[in-house]
Amino acid sequence: MGIERAVVLLSGGLDSATCLAIASKDYEVHALTFDYGSRHSKEIAAARAVAKHFGVRSHRVVKVDLASIGGSSLTEHAIPVKRVESEEGIGRTIPNTYVPARNMTFLSIGVALAESIGASSVFIGANSVDYSGYPDCRPEFIEAFQRAAELGTKTGVEGRPVRIEAPLLRMSKAEIVKKGAKLRVPFGMTWTCYSGRRTACGLCEACQLRLAGFREAGVRDPVKYAD
Amino acid sequence: MGIERAVVLLSGGLDSATCLAIASKDYEVHALTFDYGSRHSKEIAAARAVAKHFGVRSHRVVKVDLASIGGSSLTEHAIPVKRVESEEGIGRTIPNTYVPARNMTFLSIGVALAESIGASSVFIGANSVDYSGYPDCRPEFIEAFQRAAELGTKTGVEGRPVRIEAPLLRMSKAEIVKKGAKLRVPFGMTWTCYSGRRTACGLCEACQLRLAGFREAGVRDPVKYAD
Repeated sequence: MGIERAVVLLSGGLDSATCLAIASKDYEVHALTFDYGSRHSKEIAAARAVAKHFGVRSHRVVKVDLASIGGSSLTEHAIPVKRVESEEGIGRTIPNTYVPARNMTFLSIGVALAESIGASSVFIGANSVDYSGYPDCRPEFIEAFQRAAELGTKTGVEGRPVRIEAPLLRMSKAEIVKKGAKLRVPFGMTWTCYSGRRTACGLCEACQLRLAGFREAGVRDPVKYAD
Repeated sequence: MGIERAVVLLSGGLDSATCLAIASKDYEVHALTFDYGSRHSKEIAAARAVAKHFGVRSHRVVKVDLASIGGSSLTEHAIPVKRVESEEGIGRTIPNTYVPARNMTFLSIGVALAESIGASSVFIGANSVDYSGYPDCRPEFIEAFQRAAELGTKTGVEGRPVRIEAPLLRMSKAEIVKKGAKLRVPFGMTWTCYSGRRTACGLCEACQLRLAGFREAGVRDPVKYAD
């Protein structure tokens, strides 16, 4: 029997790139990126670069038209992404960058791909510590989803359910940066900022969490930020 | 307070049309159809006709590229849809028309739409009695999914989770036909056959289940079948 296959959900950000690096140690990786009508395509370009860097076995970019569903500043251009003025503002309430049921949708399609290609697990870079208040990044959600996937799939019924692996779930952003540095994640290829400008804004909550993580980890962030 | 909103997953088949008729009695209906790269577009045309017939408040047709995921004869043209020769052959094993994690994916996007438009529930025409062996049509899956949706969504965290309603879950196909007849579902507009020909084939498992249901209910099926 050869090496097991894993599907890795790859957004092009720091977390999913680190997650891919972790999965690459033990699995034949099949990366899965969603083009879901978010405001810019820099993330998808980043995902392609990261996937290529790690020499994944396959990389699919699947269109899922969440923009027509609405409800988030990340897909509706009419809703401005709220800037946070200090780190204290992060994590208390669910921000308007929350995309309704996004991880549930992406994990479902990840499980579908795993069943289709015979992969034993789906890796997701969800993170509950510095999680920005997203409910679908919490351990209790991941566990409940695993249960639904066991009951609602062919492989589950046959007694070999697809496992959901979320190795970053309980890590802080600084721990993720340290882990990524150890696994030689090409941080400069990743894209975290909610804006799609040439340089990262440094002001949105995604940038702020990233910057704080690098600072705390004592690692230099090679990404260019606006002055 | 006005009438509550519901999202209804509408495939264009007999079950989802009956489900829509049920939801229409008590809710302002927002229909949601998926264009997921299945073999033909007759289902989507049927969904449009049924939605129009019932005067739904909105109808979205959302593209989700499950064809690039593969694993099913319904999305991969290279896998032929298996014909069953008798009703005894149905329900024993999971057929190759199973689309990996389809209901999980569709329900997830349904929940996303419900959150986005402030709907209190998502209706799905899943049916576990004459269910063709699909694991994602079983009550235990629907319950597990409900739990995941409670934990993984903004509305769930806020204490008003989107409810998953599957009113046909425990009905036989004949009971669904009787219910649909009572609610004046335009059966002639619905499309059930897995093939996309001008007339229904009458031979695939979907046609056979439908025909047996009409026969048992003592209702005439107005859809045209190939000789």
